[in-house]
Amino acid sequence: MSHHFDALVIGGGVVGLSVAWRAARRGMKVAVIDPAPASGASHAAAGMLAPVSEVTYTEEPLLRLGLASLARWPAFAAELAEDGGLDLDYRADGTLDVAFGADDLAALDELASFVEKLGLPAERLTGRECRRLEPMLAPSVRGGLLAGGDAWVDPRRVTRALLTALERRGGALVRCRVAGLETAGERGAATGAGPAPGPAAGPGAGSDAGGAAEAGVLRVTGVRLATGETVAASRVILAAGAWSGTLEGLPPEAAPPVRPIKGQIMRLRSPSPMLRHCVRGVVHGSPVYLVPRGDGEVVVGATQEEMGFDTRVTAGGLWELLRDARELVPGVTELEVADVVAGLRPGTPDNLPLVGPTSVPGLSLATGHHRGGVLLAPLTAELCLGETDEELSTICSPLRFHGQPRFQERR
Amino acid sequence: MSHHFDALVIGGGVVGLSVAWRAARRGMKVAVIDPAPASGASHAAAGMLAPVSEVTYTEEPLLRLGLASLARWPAFAAELAEDGGLDLDYRADGTLDVAFGADDLAALDELASFVEKLGLPAERLTGRECRRLEPMLAPSVRGGLLAGGDAWVDPRRVTRALLTALERRGGALVRCRVAGLETAGERGAATGAGPAPGPAAGPGAGSDAGGAAEAGVLRVTGVRLATGETVAASRVILAAGAWSGTLEGLPPEAAPPVRPIKGQIMRLRSPSPMLRHCVRGVVHGSPVYLVPRGDGEVVVGATQEEMGFDTRVTAGGLWELLRDARELVPGVTELEVADVVAGLRPGTPDNLPLVGPTSVPGLSLATGHHRGGVLLAPLTAELCLGETDEELSTICSPLRFHGQPRFQERR
Repeated sequence: MSHHFDALVIGGGVVGLSVAWRAARRGMKVAVIDPAPASGASHAAAGMLAPVSEVTYTEEPLLRLGLASLARWPAFAAELAEDGGLDLDYRADGTLDVAFGADDLAALDELASFVEKLGLPAERLTGRECRRLEPMLAPSVRGGLLAGGDAWVDPRRVTRALLTALERRGGALVRCRVAGLETAGERGAATGAGPAPGPAAGPGAGSDAGGAAEAGVLRVTGVRLATGETVAASRVILAAGAWSGTLEGLPPEAAPPVRPIKGQIMRLRSPSPMLRHCVRGVVHGSPVYLVPRGDGEVVVGATQEEMGFDTRVTAGGLWELLRDARELVPGVTELEVADVVAGLRPGTPDNLPLVGPTSVPGLSLATGHHRGGVLLAPLTAELCLGETDEELSTICSPLRFHGQPRFQERR
Repeated sequence: MSHHFDALVIGGGVVGLSVAWRAARRGMKVAVIDPAPASGASHAAAGMLAPVSEVTYTEEPLLRLGLASLARWPAFAAELAEDGGLDLDYRADGTLDVAFGADDLAALDELASFVEKLGLPAERLTGRECRRLEPMLAPSVRGGLLAGGDAWVDPRRVTRALLTALERRGGALVRCRVAGLETAGERGAATGAGPAPGPAAGPGAGSDAGGAAEAGVLRVTGVRLATGETVAASRVILAAGAWSGTLEGLPPEAAPPVRPIKGQIMRLRSPSPMLRHCVRGVVHGSPVYLVPRGDGEVVVGATQEEMGFDTRVTAGGLWELLRDARELVPGVTELEVADVVAGLRPGTPDNLPLVGPTSVPGLSLATGHHRGGVLLAPLTAELCLGETDEELSTICSPLRFHGQPRFQERR
């Protein structure tokens, strides 16, 4: 292993691997460091690429990110399938949001008119029309909204393909824990000021660190592995999901305000495909979705729990998923349970991701994607490589939290 | 491996292993044949030794078997723990049967007076008294019955101990599939007549086969393994649980009328012991139990499904268990799911086991224990070795089904 990289990515989930793969495709010398890649939130994700049904109209910035990334998915998937030599089970048949009670129907109507205003494809359906599209739906479904532009993908295939693709493009994978960030220079010189929010640094971002070094300002120079070995890099991209705030040596002013939001999912196995669309609904006030795979698998998800770094699959979590899923599609009770798993999503205070340079030269973030890591991976890679427009960069910029109480209190 | 045994046991579940271990202790040359011992119904069992709360008053013969075997458990467990070098987590703190509605309470009262009539220890409790014994019980529990004589054991520890104990006592374990029974002589001579029901053949049962051979009557002489190898034995004991009727070469007149009754269970993990007794109840008409282990594990069981040879863990099975368990003890929702598993119990037409010689010389059965394999293992071993009284032998004798329609139709 060489000891100087253009970019080191800490974290081998769907986000970190995507950034590294795209960087490697652009000729950068890149490595991903993760003791167990593709085993965290990406492993527990359902893979919905559903910006429309995922957000509410109070979250327009997130919707814009989602739509921008969804638009990038077909090309991203095609290139990844080629580089990774694997079918990703990418499907674009739309999400069917269904409603049971009058309140749910009213909420669907609001969503429908919001979506219409944005000029997005969505169709309001009666209960009967819903069942015509999905005959396994419960008879008590009273209406639905078909978001025809939504897609989905198998995240486990995506990360497997990314691992292959990264290697084929000359990127390295270091299966090791990161013990800490390596820094040089003095803290304080740049703290509180920081670079002005702006476009993310491009492939030539190494100059960041160089410039900072000249000024004697604190900068990130690489990482120290758990083996004791040090790896130097012009730029370190922190993509460690919910763990991104816990890294040793992280300058407090750059520590991302992420918290773990636990999600439990079940994978059920059907002898033949049971659904043709992603199906979502709100049952007893709790949202549930069913995502069908090409091989008949149905993913049922997901709980949202504020439990700290707890990845136990619990009786209550499974009960909630099963209760709601069978209300939506009673036939799921006949299916075999293939897998139950819990993951930790990286949540942020404003529900928007943290992508781009921090106030510490040499350190970028690619975390805080909450439920949208798979959807937002292609856009995140572009943002990290400075290839997208300023407006989306600004929405995601980690600098928006700079100087906020959470950071102050950590100093 | 020697090729002539005093007894060959087909099936390495709790029943087959118990029979073989006890036989080995008596100096018999014995082998158990099973490609995957301790992986069937024994692996999915909860290990309740609860004859009183398991039966209804319409099943007195089964209750008598259960009580007789329960009485043997303390000595059996002590000897097994010694031979097997393993603590079995044997506990005798009683079962608490609880009731929610008025119907359930009436049923409990009937059970209480039945149990009292038999002179068995049982105490009728109010809801408050139940919660005093088990503070985690739901507030809606209105009354209970404490069957103080009931015990329980960890069946996975039992089979592990049996495997060690068998070997220590000189018994053999052949990890191979049985391809078929080996027979000699002519079919027909003994069919329809068979030996009169009576005490099971003792350690000297080898004479059975010898006598039959002289008469030219069909007799079992050993087994053929999937490897093609033949193993000869004076006596073959068929203890293959739900699969006991499917053995190749099984003379139809001796084929046990067993059918698979699927049971799904969950093992939950509690950081500290949650219950002190086995807790049972009927929720929405479906019976559920929670069995606590010394290490904080709680086993929740069990479904009863007529699904043929289907061992899939299903969404519906888990949902049913979780729904009922949380009704009984709401706090289970906080527990981690350690394991979910399905097993097939060997059911019989009259709900009684099939233990003892068949009408075919050289062939005995030790199957059909349904939900009672762990409870009835010590008694079954005695019955197979001809060490118990005629009355219990007669209740279990396979000859009671001889000439019945099921057999006729198989000929």
